[in-house]
Amino acid sequence: MVPKNPNDSSITRRTLIGAGAGLAVAHAAAPARAQATPDANLPPAAPQWQKQSGAEVMSPPYGLPSPFEAKVVRRLRGGIEPATRLATTSCTPLQDLAGIITPNGLHYERHHAGVPAIDPDQHRLIVHGLVERPMIFSLEELTRFPSVSRIHFLECSGNTQNWGAPKPEYTAQDTHGLVSCCEWTGVSLATVLAEAGVRAEAKWLLAEGADAAAMTRSIPIEKALDDAILAYAQNGERLRPEQGYPLRLLLPGYEGNASIKWLRRLKLGVAPFETREETSKYTMVMPDRTIRQFNFIMEAKSVITYPSGGHRLKQPGFCEISGLAWSGAGKIVRVEVSTDDGLTWRDAALQEPVLSKCLTRFRLPWRWEGGPAVLASRATDATGYVQPSRDALLKLRDGRSYYHYNAIQSWRVASSGAVTNAG
Amino acid sequence: MVPKNPNDSSITRRTLIGAGAGLAVAHAAAPARAQATPDANLPPAAPQWQKQSGAEVMSPPYGLPSPFEAKVVRRLRGGIEPATRLATTSCTPLQDLAGIITPNGLHYERHHAGVPAIDPDQHRLIVHGLVERPMIFSLEELTRFPSVSRIHFLECSGNTQNWGAPKPEYTAQDTHGLVSCCEWTGVSLATVLAEAGVRAEAKWLLAEGADAAAMTRSIPIEKALDDAILAYAQNGERLRPEQGYPLRLLLPGYEGNASIKWLRRLKLGVAPFETREETSKYTMVMPDRTIRQFNFIMEAKSVITYPSGGHRLKQPGFCEISGLAWSGAGKIVRVEVSTDDGLTWRDAALQEPVLSKCLTRFRLPWRWEGGPAVLASRATDATGYVQPSRDALLKLRDGRSYYHYNAIQSWRVASSGAVTNAG
Repeated sequence: MVPKNPNDSSITRRTLIGAGAGLAVAHAAAPARAQATPDANLPPAAPQWQKQSGAEVMSPPYGLPSPFEAKVVRRLRGGIEPATRLATTSCTPLQDLAGIITPNGLHYERHHAGVPAIDPDQHRLIVHGLVERPMIFSLEELTRFPSVSRIHFLECSGNTQNWGAPKPEYTAQDTHGLVSCCEWTGVSLATVLAEAGVRAEAKWLLAEGADAAAMTRSIPIEKALDDAILAYAQNGERLRPEQGYPLRLLLPGYEGNASIKWLRRLKLGVAPFETREETSKYTMVMPDRTIRQFNFIMEAKSVITYPSGGHRLKQPGFCEISGLAWSGAGKIVRVEVSTDDGLTWRDAALQEPVLSKCLTRFRLPWRWEGGPAVLASRATDATGYVQPSRDALLKLRDGRSYYHYNAIQSWRVASSGAVTNAG
Repeated sequence: MVPKNPNDSSITRRTLIGAGAGLAVAHAAAPARAQATPDANLPPAAPQWQKQSGAEVMSPPYGLPSPFEAKVVRRLRGGIEPATRLATTSCTPLQDLAGIITPNGLHYERHHAGVPAIDPDQHRLIVHGLVERPMIFSLEELTRFPSVSRIHFLECSGNTQNWGAPKPEYTAQDTHGLVSCCEWTGVSLATVLAEAGVRAEAKWLLAEGADAAAMTRSIPIEKALDDAILAYAQNGERLRPEQGYPLRLLLPGYEGNASIKWLRRLKLGVAPFETREETSKYTMVMPDRTIRQFNFIMEAKSVITYPSGGHRLKQPGFCEISGLAWSGAGKIVRVEVSTDDGLTWRDAALQEPVLSKCLTRFRLPWRWEGGPAVLASRATDATGYVQPSRDALLKLRDGRSYYHYNAIQSWRVASSGAVTNAG
């Protein structure tokens, strides 16, 4: 099915793609059009790849991307080398990806003391504190519980650093690459907590990772008993090491750092545990410069991934605008796209199925006339929340903030076709 | 959410998992239970992984599975070395996977002359024959068209060789591993054919691959104009080489070989082209030993992946039965599971969202009493088609058949807990 845009009655697919003799798209790249039109009936000459056998099956047994895709990898934000690669992030190449699933090899990373190499047979999960029955679980025991699988995004709360002046050279990987989306499988945390027996006075839960940072966050018991997953698989296979192998907490819609990786301990308590990661980090600066803790839910957000920073439109004509929207509060219900710097907006088509707390791919047909343009997208979620402009966001927070930047992202298209970050 | 089984009122999660002091699952693995119960309040001793920093981000930039998962790879069916690894299959390790998405590195393979190493900038798609405007497209031109993404299974029509006596040692990878499932992205074939202008007399379409086998099939024009995709991405990233990089045909629900990989040519014609692959291969042997061609749609089918061949249940008690169901005709609407060799059946829970022509994960809580058992699953699709027994299937086909084996699969659980293939 071709995506439909019900609000766009002035543009049909035919006029967009098939103008004139229907060759508008085939005209796109001059080298291809320079070739002779193929004979209507005779088979064309064989390409070189038909003249020799290829590689055997299982070359290798666990497959890898084509060498021609070697540039599609995780990268440091802005290519800037951090003080240490043990406590930093790497970003997903959103500008090169399609659909909603992030392949495991390209899922973003955020570590606080590097990636431990955990032997799954040695790993244990301890459940203690305000429970009837303190328990220790091996991974094998956890995988015996009833399992659940759901497709959810994960986003680092430090994703998108447009608080200051935007860096024109930034790509979507640089600006928004700390979000990824997988099908996660594990056991419902509620199931495991029922085993241990949560005491009535338990209102918070401490989750601790088995990494050298002992990454630790406090989680409200309501979330733990709602849709939290003790995840051991992503996109079908066991977790990747950098995603918490062999066990992570997965808190759909919450800021990524709360979904503790390499999970080794859950302690039930009456109040937040006020860990390092919820006092010195992962807080929000309000307009009056007070600090707000426990800002778990990632607000609705969107980004156009094509065309985006670093892309270059080669000639005027049809261009499908495509991007991703998500909300930690539930489903995306609407994405609007502007091609005139926010003067007018049109509804984009949303790729089905639209799932809760999951990346949603949107698409809008557009005709680039060859002049300057500014592209932007605006997401609305099922709660009615509308992604704010940068100005509106800066009224809600102090400008020295670091986390939870979710304002509308704009990309500037120059007459040359070059696309740059407009923040 | 814990999967619910509305037909299973006799068993509650509590009685399944939490028998006695709620420790049934924690009792599962003796070594874990031998550990002391953790102190209710004091933090437990740090594991070795908390005592040293781990690996840096982007180790490597394109991530890989944990070394502890090195056995989860594609394999030759039954481990049997074929005459040539250029023209054979490798199987997805279904018994080790969760959810519905197959990671790209584990997608099954079927090649006829190996995997060509195609330079995407050199690759061309030719559209000719009964069209108004014969055309040549570069990959860059094709990616400019409106895109679509959908999650679909692919299954080799030679998947599951239970026509003869079942091999007890076969795993689900051996019996059913020629099915995988990805989110595919590309351009609707109908869109591209509209560019070229299909003539009214065109009823079939020849699709040819750029591999050394020039793998070639005839496709009905109705399918080409329905949901066929010219796919260039799988699970977000560009196609893997062994999945047709840089371009493949994707015919949802059709036998895998028709979804021509490394697609280089589409020719419109009035009738099937009677290629090698639809005369000497990929046909069906009917009970009267006539041969039926063009058996495109993969019939509804299912397989229990846990527990399955090669697994061993360690002790009696709760065991979640889980597996996959799919149909080339549309959505799966029901999966029934038997634990008594087909005497009685219970409805399994289906993982949401249930998508058309897509793997559907099913789950059923079960208590293994420690004696012999035979497990089986039976899928029903939206057309009302019910997956047949082996006996029923053998009445519809000659026993010397090779393709389209979709009968009910059984696994035998011995008193020892060992699980073997019962065919």
